Amino acid sequence: MEGYRHGDGYITDEGGDGFAHVYRVDELLHESRSQFQRLRVVRNAFFGRMLVLDDAVQTTEADDFIYHELLSHVPLCAHPEPKRALIVGGGDGGLLREALRHPLEHVTMVEIDGEVVEVTRRWIPSIPQDAFEDPRVELRVADGVRFVEESEVGFDVAMVDSTDPKGPSLGLFSSEFYGRLAAMLGSRGVLAVQSGSPLYQKELIALVARNMRPHFRWVRHYLGHVPTYPGVLWSFTVGANGRDPIEVPDEEIAGRMSAIPTKYYTPRAHRGLFEFPPYLRAALPVE
Amino acid sequence: MEGYRHGDGYITDEGGDGFAHVYRVDELLHESRSQFQRLRVVRNAFFGRMLVLDDAVQTTEADDFIYHELLSHVPLCAHPEPKRALIVGGGDGGLLREALRHPLEHVTMVEIDGEVVEVTRRWIPSIPQDAFEDPRVELRVADGVRFVEESEVGFDVAMVDSTDPKGPSLGLFSSEFYGRLAAMLGSRGVLAVQSGSPLYQKELIALVARNMRPHFRWVRHYLGHVPTYPGVLWSFTVGANGRDPIEVPDEEIAGRMSAIPTKYYTPRAHRGLFEFPPYLRAALPVE
Repeated sequence: MEGYRHGDGYITDEGGDGFAHVYRVDELLHESRSQFQRLRVVRNAFFGRMLVLDDAVQTTEADDFIYHELLSHVPLCAHPEPKRALIVGGGDGGLLREALRHPLEHVTMVEIDGEVVEVTRRWIPSIPQDAFEDPRVELRVADGVRFVEESEVGFDVAMVDSTDPKGPSLGLFSSEFYGRLAAMLGSRGVLAVQSGSPLYQKELIALVARNMRPHFRWVRHYLGHVPTYPGVLWSFTVGANGRDPIEVPDEEIAGRMSAIPTKYYTPRAHRGLFEFPPYLRAALPVE
Repeated sequence: MEGYRHGDGYITDEGGDGFAHVYRVDELLHESRSQFQRLRVVRNAFFGRMLVLDDAVQTTEADDFIYHELLSHVPLCAHPEPKRALIVGGGDGGLLREALRHPLEHVTMVEIDGEVVEVTRRWIPSIPQDAFEDPRVELRVADGVRFVEESEVGFDVAMVDSTDPKGPSLGLFSSEFYGRLAAMLGSRGVLAVQSGSPLYQKELIALVARNMRPHFRWVRHYLGHVPTYPGVLWSFTVGANGRDPIEVPDEEIAGRMSAIPTKYYTPRAHRGLFEFPPYLRAALPVE
């Protein structure tokens, strides 16, 4: 697919075979290579500052709230009383920012690539805002897979904000990893992960479902539209052992979110996020 | 934005400033130029055969049902008993195909560019299927604006499947056009139109709302995801004088759609289509 690419003046983020999102780079603000990946921060006329890891757009000033609201508020509302949360990945700090809006006592964040944290804080501060200064936050620059293998700590909710299952992210989609997380989370625990494009990565949702089901009583998939991910329509998967994430009462969500104004996720929309159109239900392991 | 384009080996369909969908052309099946536009039928590995007018993807084998189900079943279910329908545009026949699944007595289709009809029937027959052979159909190759100015016929439901408001499509977004349609539709009439990308064409939704409101008691916007339109998230607008399209009872829709299996639109999803996330409600003229 190299013939497809435009070179450094453009970001080419591929979806299906022969399809890509292309963004014009109006300014290259930062470029570096960490131990794990190539990092770029570019400015695009429409989306503002964009964080690009290798060739995949991770988050942008214009739409970061959509992905981060969906990956935080859904699992946090699915737990009846979350106090301790774990974030794996999510180095840009957007997920951390949203999670901290809940009355959590402690958030452990384990990000393998400290350079993602540093670069985002410097170049796109509107995404983490002051999340990393919050006294409830413990940031560890470490491998999330190893952390859950070795740690003895317990959490109420875990959120995995990973890149695609390649290289260092591969282990974040395994049954062993989900099993360890389930054990750390206990009987009311909730885990949410991003599970890729329902259009272009159907096998990824299937993999997540297969690997999560042995460890969680309920495994539910939900959808949102993230304008800067290829195909826009994006899937997330939540596993829970205490109660079905779909069946959280509307009034409970409304009460808990009443002090947390959001731009995408709303109590009214909660149940609808889990509705897949028939053509996707037919192609994916969703009920 | 010309630097952006790849040339004939690719289709570059632009969204916002500096953003485009790019499709690799795996085979060019047809190319011609009509009085109105450049027509291409290309094959793409992921989306199959695609109809491209100028540089905009109109419809594809893989996802035509989404747009066409949304533009037909919503207005047809919003009318209590539609017998006569008008389609303006929609030369590929996909909208006609879906509309004919309802127990209509007559459908008049007015398409300005007869070449779109011929090319789609020949190269992507899975889209029109046998819709143009249906004895209930009257196809007129004519200007839709002039047709509604001159015709004395009455309809229950009108559906406008237009390209972007440029050239011959411009008149299809005017208050005069909507006013003439409202008059032809009578007191229970329903009109549905595609109203563009809520991300990249906010001004188009605002234009449609402004021009439709003087003529319809209810003007409602709804959303769907069309993978091959730039930004994927797409808006439609329905105007009605008999009843609020959102408030059609679930049971009525379920009954009327029971013999019409669909792949995207479902009775359960009907109401949810009209829910806009807060960030879009804030940016658009929706309630």
